[in-house]
Amino acid sequence: MNIESIVLILCRLLEVEGLLLLTPAAVSLVYREKMGFVYLILGIICFVIGFIASRFKIKKQIFYAKEGFVVVSLGWILMSLVGCLPFVLTGEIPSFTDAFFETVSGFTTTGSSILTDVEALSHCSLFWRSFTHWIGGMGVFVFMLAVLPMTGAQNMHLMRSESPGPEVGKLVPKLKESAKILYIIYFAMTVAEIIILLISGMAPFDSITLSFGTAGTGGFGVRNSSIADYTYLQQLIIGIFMVLFGINFNFYFFLFLRRSLKEAFRMDEVRTYLGIIAVSVIVIMIDARHLFNGVADGFIKAFFQVSSIITTTGYATADFDTWPALSKTVLFTLMFIGACAGSTGGGFKVSRIIIAVKSHVRKIKGFIHPRLVQNVYLDGRKLKEETVSGVSIYTVTYILIIVASLLLVSMDEFDLETNITAVAATLNNIGPGFSTIGPTCNFSAFSPFVKYVLCFDMLAGRLELFPMLILFAPSTWRKR
Amino acid sequence: MNIESIVLILCRLLEVEGLLLLTPAAVSLVYREKMGFVYLILGIICFVIGFIASRFKIKKQIFYAKEGFVVVSLGWILMSLVGCLPFVLTGEIPSFTDAFFETVSGFTTTGSSILTDVEALSHCSLFWRSFTHWIGGMGVFVFMLAVLPMTGAQNMHLMRSESPGPEVGKLVPKLKESAKILYIIYFAMTVAEIIILLISGMAPFDSITLSFGTAGTGGFGVRNSSIADYTYLQQLIIGIFMVLFGINFNFYFFLFLRRSLKEAFRMDEVRTYLGIIAVSVIVIMIDARHLFNGVADGFIKAFFQVSSIITTTGYATADFDTWPALSKTVLFTLMFIGACAGSTGGGFKVSRIIIAVKSHVRKIKGFIHPRLVQNVYLDGRKLKEETVSGVSIYTVTYILIIVASLLLVSMDEFDLETNITAVAATLNNIGPGFSTIGPTCNFSAFSPFVKYVLCFDMLAGRLELFPMLILFAPSTWRKR
Repeated sequence: MNIESIVLILCRLLEVEGLLLLTPAAVSLVYREKMGFVYLILGIICFVIGFIASRFKIKKQIFYAKEGFVVVSLGWILMSLVGCLPFVLTGEIPSFTDAFFETVSGFTTTGSSILTDVEALSHCSLFWRSFTHWIGGMGVFVFMLAVLPMTGAQNMHLMRSESPGPEVGKLVPKLKESAKILYIIYFAMTVAEIIILLISGMAPFDSITLSFGTAGTGGFGVRNSSIADYTYLQQLIIGIFMVLFGINFNFYFFLFLRRSLKEAFRMDEVRTYLGIIAVSVIVIMIDARHLFNGVADGFIKAFFQVSSIITTTGYATADFDTWPALSKTVLFTLMFIGACAGSTGGGFKVSRIIIAVKSHVRKIKGFIHPRLVQNVYLDGRKLKEETVSGVSIYTVTYILIIVASLLLVSMDEFDLETNITAVAATLNNIGPGFSTIGPTCNFSAFSPFVKYVLCFDMLAGRLELFPMLILFAPSTWRKR
Repeated sequence: MNIESIVLILCRLLEVEGLLLLTPAAVSLVYREKMGFVYLILGIICFVIGFIASRFKIKKQIFYAKEGFVVVSLGWILMSLVGCLPFVLTGEIPSFTDAFFETVSGFTTTGSSILTDVEALSHCSLFWRSFTHWIGGMGVFVFMLAVLPMTGAQNMHLMRSESPGPEVGKLVPKLKESAKILYIIYFAMTVAEIIILLISGMAPFDSITLSFGTAGTGGFGVRNSSIADYTYLQQLIIGIFMVLFGINFNFYFFLFLRRSLKEAFRMDEVRTYLGIIAVSVIVIMIDARHLFNGVADGFIKAFFQVSSIITTTGYATADFDTWPALSKTVLFTLMFIGACAGSTGGGFKVSRIIIAVKSHVRKIKGFIHPRLVQNVYLDGRKLKEETVSGVSIYTVTYILIIVASLLLVSMDEFDLETNITAVAATLNNIGPGFSTIGPTCNFSAFSPFVKYVLCFDMLAGRLELFPMLILFAPSTWRKR
């Protein structure tokens, strides 16, 4: 294990987080909030420590996949440890456990909250809370790759550990360029949403913070009622942007940079994703029709909730915990499907579902025609067998984590629906679940132990399981 | 598709079922029940049809895996269609859907019931209901292999489609001999249980029917209170026999026929299975201690329920739906684990869990030491990569069926806990679930459509998914 390199990268991360902490400090100037000093001072301290430490030269240049996984998972934990300090120091979330949970939930773009009264927070803390979504959405290491000079060996391993999906997508041959393009698309789309929300008449603070939450597919709101009190138009805008941020960013690369509509829509994943959304909306509109005021209201509520859950954002405009069983089951299923690979959304990812279904169909056909050689295709390309079997083993790992978490979470003795959806909502980075943690409730009732279990799930979910497991695997730290 | 061969085998099946139907007719003699005539006449008709039809010679001898899967799944459906007729004809279960559900539940050794008053049934019908468990437990095709003269080509494919586990276990080189040995062990152990229960003071009728339910790991009782009203000693006897019937039968082969304790206990699956039972019992004894009258009561109740659920039998001595969340979650997890491969129990099977966990650990280690070549071992033997990847694809298929069933079952608008456990309890051939279908309730409230969905799940679960899927796959029936 190359400890030196790991420490160095973590210091650079601290430096970046120091700079990011200055933005809420700037916000506090606008609202004349004294709390801003906490962000300012903490930001400067982080920056200075990181700046000084990262000047040291390291001797050992060896950097394998193992180091990549370890540094990314440690980095996300460090980022959350530092990021939660302002909440504790300002006294807005006095419990360290709660503050840590809230910050992990922010960076991992989960959006599960322990706060019972969001509106009581200062503007700078609300801003920071939503900003963590934006930072976590595309990934902080991807950001570092895009803007900092880093050695080539590290890049691939860092990018692979942080970006979501069954295959590492390189848009252009150079990884650094890929990272830059991703952040440009991300930035441009976020700005577009802010502007459109401003035009719709939303207050600037709400427009910015909610756009952060949408872009990162996070789900922290700035009002106690989540998104329910905004106008239909604003709900529709946010709903559409959630869907857009849940699409594989390669789509936008094809669309805007290569200007090829054909290439963009050849992507199986995008078409399946949009198809699932359409079918789910229709089923819920029919199943829960007695709860809606006409077709328009039904469409807006169903569409908003479907796009919020499948993209793993977690905003709510209705108390979907009171919806009928079929609608709830549709949402429950969407929780496990998740958004597209290569988007800011979490979950199992649509492309993995496609590969899993195709390899299942191949198995069935193999029984019927044993001598037929069959390949699995995605977007018209033949997939490597490694990718196909990778999805199966990912499924197994995913289930093992769900079962272990479920057993640990149930120690708090809530009902099964609460426990299952708590694990589903955190591991898939969604936010709210059903029952005790439904959209009108929150995660505050859980014991500290269970909160840390759910923190693990949120981090494991955001980093696609393996980095966190490798961090805690004994053989990672054993000397050979 | 070799239709001729398929029809012939189905006719022989009818012949066998005709003979089996004569046993409840014999029982009716003891209790002087007129209903026995229904069984007698139906039995004779089946036997005659089967006998005549099976005399025809067939020309085409080709018999592939495809034909094996189709004949086994069609056979199980046919067996249930015929087996449910006495319930309808005697008027004891007037609805055909309900009678079919009950019979599928019997043959697949599920034990989910639509009856609200079991005790109202005649003795011969109660006997037949329990006897279906015993027939389904070891499998009717395995029985046919053991006793009827059949051509060699068919045997392997039939055996493979019906016996449970990730690998087809041949005890001895000859398949026919293996089937015979399995049935001898099965028969001897059932008789042993009957005798021990008789010695404990249980009535003969109860001893026999409950032993059928235990042996097949079915779960149909003959009293409305399931097993709760029997003595502690009798509960303990049944509990222990459930554990014994959930063990891989290879274990008994090594123990009794090869007389090798060492070989028997070298089986990873058996040791893991017993370990899971021990841990689960201890967790429940601690977690639900306030509900028990002392340690002995706690042990008996916890042990009975754990062995009933992990072996997928489904008997109950306590209303575990009222147990605390952790205990319920332990039971919920056991529902998905299931018994050993090569036993009469259902579920995912312990050996598959072992292989899944090992291939997961291999994946993690592969990230850490990329150049290390690793194999997966079971019982000290290196597994074929085909078997390992087979488990992963089985997992994917299993989840796809769960999700599809869950969405269909939720159309009845019961709560999520009911729906999830209804699917879990039927696909894993357990019996009762939680909430609306808890141990004190039954499946009668579901709509006919949902009942047929659950019938599919029971059959799919008993035959290990693929036969039923292949039966309904369009490419099975397409001419090439």
